[in-house]
Amino acid sequence: MSANVWPVIFGLVGLGSAWYIYQRVKDFPEGEAKVAEIAEQIHLGAMVFMRREYTMLAWFCLVLLVLLFFSPGLGFSTALAFLVGALCSAGAGYIGMSTATRANVRTTTAAHSHGAADALTVAFFGGSIMGLAVASLGLLGLGVLYLLFGGDPHTAHHIHGFGMGASSVALFSRVGGGIYTKSADVGADLVGKVEAGIPEDDPRNPGVIADNVGDNVGDVAGMGSDIFESYCGAMIATIAMASTMTLATISPLGEREALMFLPLGLASTGLLCSIIGIFVVRRVSSKSPQTALRIGTVGTTVLFIVVSFYVITSLVGVSANVWWAVVAGAIGGIIIGLVTEYFTSSQPVREIALAGETGPATVIITGLSVGMRSVVIPILAICAIIAISSELVGLYGVGIAAVGMLATVGITMAIDAYGPVADNAGGIAEMSGLGEETRAITDSLDELGNTTAAIGKGFAIGAAALAALAIITAFVETVSASKADFALEIGNPHVLIGIFMGGVIPFFLAALTMDAVGKAAFEMINEIRRQFREISGLLEGTARPDTARCVDIATTAALKKMVLPGVIAVAAPPVVGLLMSAEALGGMLAGALLGCVLLALTMANAGGAWDNAKKYVEKGHHGGKGSDTHTATVVGDTVGDPFKDTSGPSMNILINVMAIVSLVIAPLL
Amino acid sequence: MSANVWPVIFGLVGLGSAWYIYQRVKDFPEGEAKVAEIAEQIHLGAMVFMRREYTMLAWFCLVLLVLLFFSPGLGFSTALAFLVGALCSAGAGYIGMSTATRANVRTTTAAHSHGAADALTVAFFGGSIMGLAVASLGLLGLGVLYLLFGGDPHTAHHIHGFGMGASSVALFSRVGGGIYTKSADVGADLVGKVEAGIPEDDPRNPGVIADNVGDNVGDVAGMGSDIFESYCGAMIATIAMASTMTLATISPLGEREALMFLPLGLASTGLLCSIIGIFVVRRVSSKSPQTALRIGTVGTTVLFIVVSFYVITSLVGVSANVWWAVVAGAIGGIIIGLVTEYFTSSQPVREIALAGETGPATVIITGLSVGMRSVVIPILAICAIIAISSELVGLYGVGIAAVGMLATVGITMAIDAYGPVADNAGGIAEMSGLGEETRAITDSLDELGNTTAAIGKGFAIGAAALAALAIITAFVETVSASKADFALEIGNPHVLIGIFMGGVIPFFLAALTMDAVGKAAFEMINEIRRQFREISGLLEGTARPDTARCVDIATTAALKKMVLPGVIAVAAPPVVGLLMSAEALGGMLAGALLGCVLLALTMANAGGAWDNAKKYVEKGHHGGKGSDTHTATVVGDTVGDPFKDTSGPSMNILINVMAIVSLVIAPLL
Repeated sequence: MSANVWPVIFGLVGLGSAWYIYQRVKDFPEGEAKVAEIAEQIHLGAMVFMRREYTMLAWFCLVLLVLLFFSPGLGFSTALAFLVGALCSAGAGYIGMSTATRANVRTTTAAHSHGAADALTVAFFGGSIMGLAVASLGLLGLGVLYLLFGGDPHTAHHIHGFGMGASSVALFSRVGGGIYTKSADVGADLVGKVEAGIPEDDPRNPGVIADNVGDNVGDVAGMGSDIFESYCGAMIATIAMASTMTLATISPLGEREALMFLPLGLASTGLLCSIIGIFVVRRVSSKSPQTALRIGTVGTTVLFIVVSFYVITSLVGVSANVWWAVVAGAIGGIIIGLVTEYFTSSQPVREIALAGETGPATVIITGLSVGMRSVVIPILAICAIIAISSELVGLYGVGIAAVGMLATVGITMAIDAYGPVADNAGGIAEMSGLGEETRAITDSLDELGNTTAAIGKGFAIGAAALAALAIITAFVETVSASKADFALEIGNPHVLIGIFMGGVIPFFLAALTMDAVGKAAFEMINEIRRQFREISGLLEGTARPDTARCVDIATTAALKKMVLPGVIAVAAPPVVGLLMSAEALGGMLAGALLGCVLLALTMANAGGAWDNAKKYVEKGHHGGKGSDTHTATVVGDTVGDPFKDTSGPSMNILINVMAIVSLVIAPLL
Repeated sequence: MSANVWPVIFGLVGLGSAWYIYQRVKDFPEGEAKVAEIAEQIHLGAMVFMRREYTMLAWFCLVLLVLLFFSPGLGFSTALAFLVGALCSAGAGYIGMSTATRANVRTTTAAHSHGAADALTVAFFGGSIMGLAVASLGLLGLGVLYLLFGGDPHTAHHIHGFGMGASSVALFSRVGGGIYTKSADVGADLVGKVEAGIPEDDPRNPGVIADNVGDNVGDVAGMGSDIFESYCGAMIATIAMASTMTLATISPLGEREALMFLPLGLASTGLLCSIIGIFVVRRVSSKSPQTALRIGTVGTTVLFIVVSFYVITSLVGVSANVWWAVVAGAIGGIIIGLVTEYFTSSQPVREIALAGETGPATVIITGLSVGMRSVVIPILAICAIIAISSELVGLYGVGIAAVGMLATVGITMAIDAYGPVADNAGGIAEMSGLGEETRAITDSLDELGNTTAAIGKGFAIGAAALAALAIITAFVETVSASKADFALEIGNPHVLIGIFMGGVIPFFLAALTMDAVGKAAFEMINEIRRQFREISGLLEGTARPDTARCVDIATTAALKKMVLPGVIAVAAPPVVGLLMSAEALGGMLAGALLGCVLLALTMANAGGAWDNAKKYVEKGHHGGKGSDTHTATVVGDTVGDPFKDTSGPSMNILINVMAIVSLVIAPLL
C-alpha cells in the first residue's frame, strides 16, 4: 500500500473520532422543556441562515465552476477539484455548526444538573468536533485529489481548484457570518442593555436569539472555514512549489514526489497528534481547565514536532533542514497566539480602562494605539519564520513552515470553538432563567473561552498570512515555470502599481464590512425599538417577542452585504492579471498581503483589548459598572465588535482568496 | 551666464518677494494694547518652543553631521550639504512662524477696524510668506549646492545630504509640533469646554495660549517643513536618477546634464508662477475669497504647465514626453486635493453626523470607514501618475512628475498656511473680547481656511508619496549603478522580510505618536484642573491663569516624545541596510511607503471628516449644539485630533526621512 493513501485513511479516522465524540455529546441530556425550546430556536435560526447562505453560495460557485470548466488549461479536472473543495468546506461548516448548536444546550444543562466539570467536557467536546471536522475533511478531500492528480507534476495544478472552492465558501461564511453576528450583537445590546436597561441575553429582548445564532454563525462556522482555508491553502501551495520548482532547486532537498507528498504526510501526523491531544485534555481538564487547554495546545505541538522528525526522515531522507522549517512554523504560531493574548489582556487592557476615566475619545485613541503596537512582534515572528525556513530550505521551506504551523489545527480549532459554545450556554442559561449558580459556571467557562478565542484569533491571522505567502510563492513559481523572464522587481512600474492597488483593497474591504455592520445594526435597532413599542406587555414579560423577524433581518442583511466584498476579492486577481500583467498581479498580492496582515492584527487586537477593558471595568475597577468610565469602555467595545469579528477576520480570507485565485489562473497568464 | 545660476537668482527673487510682503503685513496696525499683549504671549510661546526645539535639533544634527563626515565616500561635501539643508529647513520654519505670529494679530485688528476684505489680505499675506520662504529657500539652497556639485555626475550624490538635513529638521518639526498642538488642544478643550463649560479660546482657560501657539507650531512650521522636505526630495531624487542612470536609458530623453538640471529649472518656473498667482489672488480676493483661492491654485498650475512646456523644450530639446510627466504630476496633485475635500466635507461628513444619532461608537465606526474608503482614488491617481510617466519617460518620469506636482508649492503652501493664521486671529478676537461682529468675520475666514487646509493636507500626502517614490527609485538606481546583480525581487526572502518590516514601522510610529498626545494631554488636563481649583477667582475672571506653565508642559512633552519616533525613522535604514542587505532595505522602503500612504490618507481624512461632522451638527443639524448627537460627534473630533494633526502627517515625513537616509547611505552598501 502506497503512502499516498495515508491522508485519506487518516482523514477517515479523524471523521470517525468526530462522530464518536458527537455520540458522547448526544449522550448528555438536553434538559428541561423551556431550555430545549430556546436551544431549538437558536438551532433553527442558525440552520435557516446556513440554508439561505449556502443557496446563494451555490449560485456563486456554479458561475465559477462554469468559468473554470471552460478555461483553457483548467477544464474538468480543476472544476472537479473546485467542487470538492467547496463541498468539504461547506461540510465542515455544517458539521461544526449543527454540533455547536447541540452542544450549547447540553453544556447549560450539564452546568445546571452536574456542575462545572461536566459542562466543560460537553463544551470542549462540542468544539473538538469542529476542530476534527476541519482537519479531517481537509485531509480527506486533498488526499483523494492527490491520489487522482498528484502522481504527475503536470496534473498536480488541478489540485489548486480545491483551494479556490474552499476559499470561496470561506469568504462568504466569514464575511456573511461576521456581518450577521455583529449586526445582531450591536443591535440587541444598544436597545436592550442601553435603552431598555434589561440584562444581556434577557428573553424579552427580540434580538437575543439572533445574537446567539450569530455566535454560532460567526465564531464557529466562520472561524472554521477561515482555518480550513488556510490549512488547505498551505498544503496546496507546498505541493505546487514542489511540483513546479526547477530540478536544481528541488534536488538538494530530496525526491520531487516525496516533497510533493510531504505536506499531506505532515498534516496526517498533525491530525493524529490532535486526536491524542483532545483525549488527553478531556482526561486532565477536570482539575484545572485553563492549564489543561494550554497543555493541550503546547503538548500537541511538541508531540507533533517530535513525530514529524521521523516522518520527514522516512519520507524524504535525512533532511533535518526541512524539519527546522516545521519547527519554525509551529513555534511561530504559538508565539503569535501568546502575543495576541498579551495585548488583549494584562497591561494594555488596563491602560485602556484607565483612559476611560477621561472619556470615550481617549478609550478609542488608546485602543487603536494598542492595536497598532500589537503588529510588531507577530510580524517580526513571521519574518523570522521566513528567514529561518528560506535560509535552510529555500522558498519551499516557507510552505513547509505554514504546514507546520497549521498541522495541529485539529486541537487549536477545538479549543477555539469551545469559546462560542460556552458563550451560547451562558445565553441559554440566562434566557431560561436557570439561576445564579448555573450562570456562574457558564460565566467562568465563557471567560476561559475568551482567552482561548484571543489566542485562536492571533493564530488564525498568523496562519493565514503564512499560508497566503506560501500560495503567492507558489504562484510566482508557477508563472516563472512557463514564462522565463518573469520577475517581480519592485522597480518595474507594473509591480509597483500592483503593490499600491493591492494595499488599497484591504482598506476598502474593511470600510465596506464596517459599513455593512453599521447599516444592518441600524435596521436591527429600529426593529427592536418597534417591537418594544408595539408589542404590549413585552417588557413586563407577559408577551413574547418576534425573534424570528430579527433573525430574518440579520440574515438578509448579511447575505446582501457580503456580495460586493466577495466579488471584489474573487474578481480583482483575474482583472489585474489578464488586463495588466502577471507582474502587476504579483505586486498586487504582495501589497494586499501586507495590508491584510497589518489591518487584521490591528483590528483583532484593538477589538479584543476594548472588549476586555470593558470587562475589567465591570469587575469593579475605575468605578465599576454604571460609572462614566464604564460607559466610555462600552463605546470602545462597540467599536471593537466589527473590528474583531467582522472586518479583521475578513482580512484573512481576503488575502487567501486573492492568492489562491491567482494560483488557479496562473496557467492562463 | 550659465542657466545653472537661475535657481539661485529665482530663489533670491522669491525671498525678496517674501520680504516685500512681510513689509506690507507690518504696515497693518497691531491693534489695541490688550490684543497686542495676547498676541505677544502667543508669539513668545511659539518662539520659546522653537528655540528649545532647535537646540535639541542642533545636537541631533551634530551627531549626524559627524557620522556623515567620517563615512567613507560621503565626507566633508555631504556633511556640508546636510548642514545647508538643515539650516534652510529651519530657516523656512523660523520665517513662517515669526510671520504667522505677526500676521494673526493684524488679521484680528483688520477684521475689527476695517472689515473682511482687509482681514483676508493680511491672513493670506501671512500664509504667502511661508509659501514663498519654503519654495525660495529650497531652490536657493539646492541651487547653490548644484553649482558646487552638480557639474559632475560623480559628485552630484553629495547633494543628497541636503535632503537628509531638510528631512531631519522636518521630522522633529512635524512630530514635535504635532504632539505639541494636539496635547494643548485636547487638554484645553476637555477641561475648558466640557468640564468648566466655558467657550473655546476663553481667556480664563490656562491652556488657551498653548492651544494657539500649537496652531502655529503644528500647522505653520510643521506643515512648512513637511512640504519643504517633499519639494527638495523630489528635486534631489530626479537629479540623482539623471546622474546615475545608464546612458542607454538616459540618451533617448536628452543630454544627461540637461536632465540633471531640469528639476531645478521646473521649480524655478513654478516659483515664478506662484509669485504671479499670489499677487493675482490678492487683487481678486476681495470679491469672493473662496473662488479667488481656488482660481489661484488651479490658475497657477495651468500657467505652470504651459510655461514648463517651453522650459522643457528649450532645456532638453523637443521632448513632449517629459512634459506629459509634468502634466500628470501637476493634475494628479489637484485631483488628490479635491478628493480630500470631498471626503472631509459633503456626503461622508453628513453620514458621520447621522451616525451620531446612535451614539459615539457609530460615529467612530463610520468615520474610520470614511477614512479607509478615502484611500482608493488618491492611490489610483498615484498609480495613474506612475503609469503615465514611466510609460512615456521611464523611471526618471516619476521624479519629474513629483517635481511637477510640487513646483507650484509657493502658492499651495500660501493658501494652506492662511488657515492657521485665520484660526489664530479668531482665537485672539475671542480672548480679547472684541465682540460678535469681529468674531463673525474671523469665523468665516477660519471656515474657508478649513477647506483649504483639507486640500493642502491631501496634497501634502500625495506629494510626499510621490517624492518618496522618486527618492526610492533614485536609491535603487544608485545601488544598481555600483552593484550589478542588485534586484528587488519580491521572491527574494530579504526583500520580502524588508517589506514586512517596512510595513510595521508606520503602524508602530502611529501608535507612538498617538500615545504621546494622549499622555501629554493627560498632564495638560491635570494642570488646567489644578489651576481652576487652586487659583481663586480664575473662573470669575478676577484672577489670571498661569498660561506659561501650560506652554511649558506642551513644549517639554513634545520634545521628549519626539525623540523615539525620530531615532527609529533615521536609524532603521542604516541598521537594516548594513546589517542585512541593500535588498532588505529596498523592500523595507517599499513596505514603509505603502503603509505610510495608506495610514496618512486614512488618518487625515477620517480626522477631517470627524471635525467637520461636529461643525455640521453645531450648525443646528440633528439637534445642534448641546444635543446627544453633538456630544457623540465631539468624541469623533477628539479622536480625530491626533489622527489628522499628529500621527497622520508624521507619516509623510517618516517615509521621506527613511527614503532620503537610504539614498545618502547608498554608496556605503
